[in-house]
Amino acid sequence: MEASGETSADPVPPSDPKDAGDIGQTLHGWARDLFPIRRSITGNGVRRTLAYLKDRLPGLTLHEVPTGTPAFDWAVPDEWNVTEAYVEDESGRRVIDWADHTLHLMGYAEPVDAWMSRAELDAHLYSLPEHPDWIPYITSYYRRRWGFCLPHRQREALPEGRYHVVIRSTLEPGSLTYADLVLPGREPEEVLLSTYICHPSMANNELSGPVVTTALAQWLAALPDRRWTYRIVFLPETIGSIVYLSRHLETMRARTLAGFVVTCVGDERDYSLMPSRLGGTLADRVATHVLDHRVPRYTPYSFLTRGSDERQYCSPGVDLPVVSIMRSKYATYPEYHTSADDLSLVTPAGLAGAYGVLRDALGLLEHHGYYRMTSPCEPQLGKRGLYPTLSTKESGAMVRNMMNVIAYCDGRHDLLDLARVCGLYAGDVVPILETLQAADLCTWSKAPSDRGA
Amino acid sequence: MEASGETSADPVPPSDPKDAGDIGQTLHGWARDLFPIRRSITGNGVRRTLAYLKDRLPGLTLHEVPTGTPAFDWAVPDEWNVTEAYVEDESGRRVIDWADHTLHLMGYAEPVDAWMSRAELDAHLYSLPEHPDWIPYITSYYRRRWGFCLPHRQREALPEGRYHVVIRSTLEPGSLTYADLVLPGREPEEVLLSTYICHPSMANNELSGPVVTTALAQWLAALPDRRWTYRIVFLPETIGSIVYLSRHLETMRARTLAGFVVTCVGDERDYSLMPSRLGGTLADRVATHVLDHRVPRYTPYSFLTRGSDERQYCSPGVDLPVVSIMRSKYATYPEYHTSADDLSLVTPAGLAGAYGVLRDALGLLEHHGYYRMTSPCEPQLGKRGLYPTLSTKESGAMVRNMMNVIAYCDGRHDLLDLARVCGLYAGDVVPILETLQAADLCTWSKAPSDRGA
Amino acid sequence: MEASGETSADPVPPSDPKDAGDIGQTLHGWARDLFPIRRSITGNGVRRTLAYLKDRLPGLTLHEVPTGTPAFDWAVPDEWNVTEAYVEDESGRRVIDWADHTLHLMGYAEPVDAWMSRAELDAHLYSLPEHPDWIPYITSYYRRRWGFCLPHRQREALPEGRYHVVIRSTLEPGSLTYADLVLPGREPEEVLLSTYICHPSMANNELSGPVVTTALAQWLAALPDRRWTYRIVFLPETIGSIVYLSRHLETMRARTLAGFVVTCVGDERDYSLMPSRLGGTLADRVATHVLDHRVPRYTPYSFLTRGSDERQYCSPGVDLPVVSIMRSKYATYPEYHTSADDLSLVTPAGLAGAYGVLRDALGLLEHHGYYRMTSPCEPQLGKRGLYPTLSTKESGAMVRNMMNVIAYCDGRHDLLDLARVCGLYAGDVVPILETLQAADLCTWSKAPSDRGA
Repeated sequence: MEASGETSADPVPPSDPKDAGDIGQTLHGWARDLFPIRRSITGNGVRRTLAYLKDRLPGLTLHEVPTGTPAFDWAVPDEWNVTEAYVEDESGRRVIDWADHTLHLMGYAEPVDAWMSRAELDAHLYSLPEHPDWIPYITSYYRRRWGFCLPHRQREALPEGRYHVVIRSTLEPGSLTYADLVLPGREPEEVLLSTYICHPSMANNELSGPVVTTALAQWLAALPDRRWTYRIVFLPETIGSIVYLSRHLETMRARTLAGFVVTCVGDERDYSLMPSRLGGTLADRVATHVLDHRVPRYTPYSFLTRGSDERQYCSPGVDLPVVSIMRSKYATYPEYHTSADDLSLVTPAGLAGAYGVLRDALGLLEHHGYYRMTSPCEPQLGKRGLYPTLSTKESGAMVRNMMNVIAYCDGRHDLLDLARVCGLYAGDVVPILETLQAADLCTWSKAPSDRGA
Repeated sequence: MEASGETSADPVPPSDPKDAGDIGQTLHGWARDLFPIRRSITGNGVRRTLAYLKDRLPGLTLHEVPTGTPAFDWAVPDEWNVTEAYVEDESGRRVIDWADHTLHLMGYAEPVDAWMSRAELDAHLYSLPEHPDWIPYITSYYRRRWGFCLPHRQREALPEGRYHVVIRSTLEPGSLTYADLVLPGREPEEVLLSTYICHPSMANNELSGPVVTTALAQWLAALPDRRWTYRIVFLPETIGSIVYLSRHLETMRARTLAGFVVTCVGDERDYSLMPSRLGGTLADRVATHVLDHRVPRYTPYSFLTRGSDERQYCSPGVDLPVVSIMRSKYATYPEYHTSADDLSLVTPAGLAGAYGVLRDALGLLEHHGYYRMTSPCEPQLGKRGLYPTLSTKESGAMVRNMMNVIAYCDGRHDLLDLARVCGLYAGDVVPILETLQAADLCTWSKAPSDRGA
Repeated sequence: MEASGETSADPVPPSDPKDAGDIGQTLHGWARDLFPIRRSITGNGVRRTLAYLKDRLPGLTLHEVPTGTPAFDWAVPDEWNVTEAYVEDESGRRVIDWADHTLHLMGYAEPVDAWMSRAELDAHLYSLPEHPDWIPYITSYYRRRWGFCLPHRQREALPEGRYHVVIRSTLEPGSLTYADLVLPGREPEEVLLSTYICHPSMANNELSGPVVTTALAQWLAALPDRRWTYRIVFLPETIGSIVYLSRHLETMRARTLAGFVVTCVGDERDYSLMPSRLGGTLADRVATHVLDHRVPRYTPYSFLTRGSDERQYCSPGVDLPVVSIMRSKYATYPEYHTSADDLSLVTPAGLAGAYGVLRDALGLLEHHGYYRMTSPCEPQLGKRGLYPTLSTKESGAMVRNMMNVIAYCDGRHDLLDLARVCGLYAGDVVPILETLQAADLCTWSKAPSDRGA
């Protein structure tokens, strides 16, 4: 047999391009539905978003954490909700209106109802001179203030005069909302998927994350005989992951095998990789392997350029093996944190591509473990029909891949090591290992063997 | 003294070119005697070959292992012997005759006596269109079939007509034959030399291996006060090493310090190195060091291109530190596994060169161990006549090599480490260490010291 | 705050160029005072030199070790003193006179009073044909002989005739003199500064060493609340450090955190670094870090080119973490060990530069240790006024350095690791760590934490 020519269909399928259209359209449809919802780190926008996702993931559980609840060095902030926010001129015309675009209002803006001059108003305006048609995204979670964001062109066109500023928001004790889903497997060790649901009306950062995570969770939920347990969480960035860790730290530290912060997975630009804090974890290794073999090119970033929940998951004292496989990384593309990060930047093909790469990574992880031949020396493949019986110059090359995998099934190389040392894609090593296991030539174990034992 | 300028004569002599002629002629003579013997993995050809070698190595012991004896995943196959094999045409002319060249008959061909058409015969013929004058080497050890091998030119010239195919072979319970020799040393740790004696009438692969190994064994047998024990084995490739390991695994795993599969050591092309499975063993290190310092250039191969008994010696569960220092590696040169791998390809100079390199490696291994100064700080070499007493700008450089060796004799650098860190050939470090030991400035030990102990 | 923009004034000040003039002049002045003293490895020149330094370092203690005292493989030699040494011609004219230049007399020359021919005299003369105006520096500590050193031009001009050679030296039991000073700190762990005081009338090698060491010792003595203990030793090269180690080995092995042989720190050429024997110690790391960040370029030498007391401090069985930060390394510059290594080669700017680099290294060492965040996840810097409260695209970059340091304060990265992994100069990391410690966000400890503990 030519071992490398056979691949089992499941669960390590290479992303099938003809599926990409379907899954991509589905994901893009979900993103379109979620786009208008007015999210922040707390409030009803989060709840509506999670309710929509729960319709697609029935096991998802929503949790409410009251304002003031301590979480390490932090406390859950007041809940923020808004009913109306606008600036009107003396004629009563609304020159800036939150109803037109969620980004017009600074996140966590305090309530205000006051008349002021053009100059007084301007001190509370935010715009981007270098992108005069885009609305920037601005928040002030932990200091009370207010502000409006608008296209620079619009700001410059505001005439002198008096303006009436109205923000009908509440900043009051309430709760922070997050959701999680734990899919049990044969083993207690966990794989973590974490994504955030606190950004209003932006698509690559962030809606791509929740929709791809939801589709991955559906795929995992349908997976027969899962090896690992999967923990899938949807939460507000930073404060959400801090709160979540404050409640699950011990379990997650003890059990997490690998994790992914799913963010910025929707555009069609090149892929990128945010490593874990120290690098070299199983998550780093599987992400690097899949990207090396599955995408034409990608940018490996330094952890110094981190910016999402790996800041908490990888922090000292937490130290989970968590990475991010992304397309255009946050803070590196011009549309980031502006109204231009929309559903034209994020496309069905972009979403489907990232979904496929992440699914491939999860599929390989399902086969993670240490493989060990059951007997010293090479097995006699011939008597099992696994080896050509006629020895010629060419026949040696025919079983090369299988023999190479056998040579390193020593209980100390895991799947990714086997692939690396044999110069193969791990997805092509899996069917070889399955053949060897079916012939009782090789056993799987969760932990490496002692050398020589 | 200029330490690097003095080398002791024995046992780390650089290969002396004027000896090369003698040893090369001897080795080539042995190869000429052995060439016509009709070897396979079992049978009388192996016995005759080993009997010839025993005449040169009196301690060599032959062993017979009965057909059916289990060896890990394998069992000893039936023994194969042949008395006659030919194809004759209707006129009674023998158009292919095993008597003309051993390679004409497929190894382990089953008996046959039948008339057939030119087309029926052709399905059992093997030839090399790209080398029309060479006979290929083909075997079928583990599936019963028959075949003849011949020059492609000859095959194409066979006219239509009826042919009488006769193979008078026996494939019956018998035994597998191998031989070994254990030369005891002061220490129980072993150095392994393994070579194979199952290929008929080919010279680089394989007769170069048994003749060079025999000469190395003679040299080791004559070595006064051997430090290590030497295990030297002659066996059929693959099944032979599997059988041997099945009988000696525990001892060999516990004791083997380094080992060499001796094969393809006869032509005059560049050297090559097959590393051990994981690399970095003492065998890898000594082979690399000797090749780096003793030959103009060599090819370091990947273990993925292995093909001889390192497949068994380095397999998971066996894991011996075994490498091959070769000239043209099997499966890389055009004449490999054909009648063109003959005694014009293998030459006295080619054999003598490889013999010298392997003997140098064994010579360095005899001095392997950890060297440790007996006192803190530099010793006072002057009072022992080891240091110039007049301090000038130049005198510093004179003892540089000795002082460098002293600086790293910390009980944690072995001989090869000392050579590497001091930028010297290990053969030039040995006399320095002997001088230091003679002056009680330094001690040898088999195992490294604990740091700082 | 822009963390990297703030640096505390003390004790990690970058060398201030406007101080360089003052300290440089002071050091050069000391060197001028010490230059004429006739030093060797024993004798009154050493005592006078140490007495001069004690006037500047009141705590310095002089020790006398009697001739014959054993020290590992060595013994303290006879003490050497000279009252007069010259060669006069038949007319009574002194053609070579030790009174003119200390280097004229071979170090440890035995007494002589004899008439001889020009040819007999010449066998005892040393000169440098390639530098005909320089006097070479020659010694013969451990074999009795005598000799004179002179410019080659002068040697060639000596006419035939009879010469009267007079050396009024004593080579008799006496003692070897060295001095040390231990400045206690909060912790028993020690930093070693070692320099030598046995070379007569040469400036880069050696007077630059004792004067820079004296100034560093003054700075350390004045340092408020020293963390570490400092051991500062002035001794004759080789025999002095061997004797010193023979008396303090156990303490120094147990306590030495890092050490520096201070030598060749006076000219204005490029910097150089002599690593420790195995490299990678705290001394190697701090020296490399300071040189990487503080000087335009430097030469990292191999330990194989060592030549000063690191030969003893780093020897097997001693193994202290000792390096040398130098300017022009001994044995690499043309003036080395000649009369041209004088106080025009060594300059105030050269001395001040090396003093500054070494002081920076000591300043960083004072902050060596392992820093660990007191709570999992990122701290809430905002509530402590350490974080901008308005989240914009730019604000992320503003606290980047502090956040990066926080991300690696895991109790397993020491100060130099933190600097390296964050891409910062360690002197810029110190104020960030001080801020975090002041806010109780981070703790210091001497030893690394267990992973994950």
